[in-house]
Amino acid sequence: MTKIGILGYGNLGRGVECAIKQNDDMELVAVFTRRDPSGVKILTESAKVASVNNILDYKDKIDVLIICGGSATDLPGQTPEYAKYFNVIDSFDTHAKIPEHFANVDKSAKDNDHIAFISVGWDPGMFSLNRAYANAILSDGADYTFWGRGVSQGHSDAIRRIEGVADARQYTCPVESAVEAVRSGKQPELTTRQKHTRECYVVAKEGADLARIEKEIKEMPNYFADYDTTVNFISQEELDKNHKGIPHGGSVIRSGKTGWNRENNHIIEYSLKLDSNPEFTGSVLVAYARAASRMHKEGMRGCKTVFDVAPAYLSPLSGEELRAHML
Amino acid sequence: MTKIGILGYGNLGRGVECAIKQNDDMELVAVFTRRDPSGVKILTESAKVASVNNILDYKDKIDVLIICGGSATDLPGQTPEYAKYFNVIDSFDTHAKIPEHFANVDKSAKDNDHIAFISVGWDPGMFSLNRAYANAILSDGADYTFWGRGVSQGHSDAIRRIEGVADARQYTCPVESAVEAVRSGKQPELTTRQKHTRECYVVAKEGADLARIEKEIKEMPNYFADYDTTVNFISQEELDKNHKGIPHGGSVIRSGKTGWNRENNHIIEYSLKLDSNPEFTGSVLVAYARAASRMHKEGMRGCKTVFDVAPAYLSPLSGEELRAHML
Repeated sequence: MTKIGILGYGNLGRGVECAIKQNDDMELVAVFTRRDPSGVKILTESAKVASVNNILDYKDKIDVLIICGGSATDLPGQTPEYAKYFNVIDSFDTHAKIPEHFANVDKSAKDNDHIAFISVGWDPGMFSLNRAYANAILSDGADYTFWGRGVSQGHSDAIRRIEGVADARQYTCPVESAVEAVRSGKQPELTTRQKHTRECYVVAKEGADLARIEKEIKEMPNYFADYDTTVNFISQEELDKNHKGIPHGGSVIRSGKTGWNRENNHIIEYSLKLDSNPEFTGSVLVAYARAASRMHKEGMRGCKTVFDVAPAYLSPLSGEELRAHML
Repeated sequence: MTKIGILGYGNLGRGVECAIKQNDDMELVAVFTRRDPSGVKILTESAKVASVNNILDYKDKIDVLIICGGSATDLPGQTPEYAKYFNVIDSFDTHAKIPEHFANVDKSAKDNDHIAFISVGWDPGMFSLNRAYANAILSDGADYTFWGRGVSQGHSDAIRRIEGVADARQYTCPVESAVEAVRSGKQPELTTRQKHTRECYVVAKEGADLARIEKEIKEMPNYFADYDTTVNFISQEELDKNHKGIPHGGSVIRSGKTGWNRENNHIIEYSLKLDSNPEFTGSVLVAYARAASRMHKEGMRGCKTVFDVAPAYLSPLSGEELRAHML
């Protein structure tokens, strides 16, 4: 059994908890929270809820700590800190800051004889893996990543901060004609606007100026200005009924050429269609927790990413079983 | 530079040669052939053509030998034999015999301090990898593999053996409605007939009985009897003009459930659309040759499959570069 701790019990923490239930070789030992533990109800009857202040009591009771905090403010501090005491995994997704985060976590893990995986999920994570594999195979080619149709939490939050907005949900949508052009092997150059559209469902407060809200959304720099954005005002009831889920997904496509004279085209496409972004991310984290535990037992130390993990470590099957049934 | 030898110069050997040209860190040293070397013209001016009888002269001049023989009769003997003298890779694809082949190659490689990769290509190979990743992530789910639209050499050969047939080309085609049903998350149970159709283009000899040929094809056990098969009689000119390529591809799809009560569906799909099956397979082999050379230098020995290779080994990029640009 691989013994797991979860730090942070939001959507992602619950997703990890559900994934552990689906894997007979994994056991949830405890959920650690910054809140008052008595107010946190988890689903797993056999697991404890403990204050993060008491996490060191679990130092020898946990094989891997899955850190389910946010990338902006939680993980840059948490992952290096807890890599002192545990093997850890996070889903750090601020692409630009990955090298810095890697260096911090690597030092902490190595100094304390632990293994630490960062940026595990689907992007970064499975999408990154597929970019790396596809680039290694088709060295002459172009990469495309399309996201959606899915909920962007960051964009939804940005809309909610506008005056007069009570609630909002934003979907990132790939432009189907752009996806098809890429799949055809044409290797088009695509602008931001040509790749994705943004679809907003907004609940306005009573008496709010809808035209102003729509204009503020559509002109918001970074978030919406570079996209074709549609704004739909709906009631809170409708939002709760039709937009409660957290679906996401997307495709990583590499279009490449082979042949002595580059005469042949190839398309490698990896696609995800996810009903629940946090539950899928949680499932990826749990598979990598299995790998972290095994690799630590084999003596591997320091910070790793998905690029450093041989696929066999992720599977509950033995090498013999993998070769017989999956190869 | 990783120094490569190619054993066998058919379609696959040429595909490997083309892939080496596309990778600046790879160098083709020699092509080894069972034919008279003077009759074998290769594309790479700087490489030698040598008789397989003289292959041991190259023992210290090659980092990895890519064995491009057939799975039925060549590879079961060749791969264990040459693993005595070289680090080797093959694309052995007789699924049922992989455990036996693995054991033979593993012993030979370990006894002689080499590393050997077997069953590298796209299926087995990239499809296997995606089955393993997707199963590790979505432990509660179902797997589907669809092949095509693509040329099956084995089925084309089987048609050519029928009396009265001058030439033939067979395409394996996925049934689009079955693929769509799987993508919808329904997890349908599908029979062989429901998943693929077979499309045959046949050149008959003059005066041959076309009705008999068509009947023999459609009723051929294992190859065609379990499928909806269409037979089109065409001229040799038409076959040469429209059916000369060796395209292939397909999709590996895992449909799985997550959530405390299995309430959410997820689809992971990996798809290939290949203009040239041997050139793509050759490109996969070359990426894994890079990995084999690196892993051997790090001290790893014995037989490995794609499951045992951390993705970073496949890439010409450093760990820092991978994390900065691909993660």
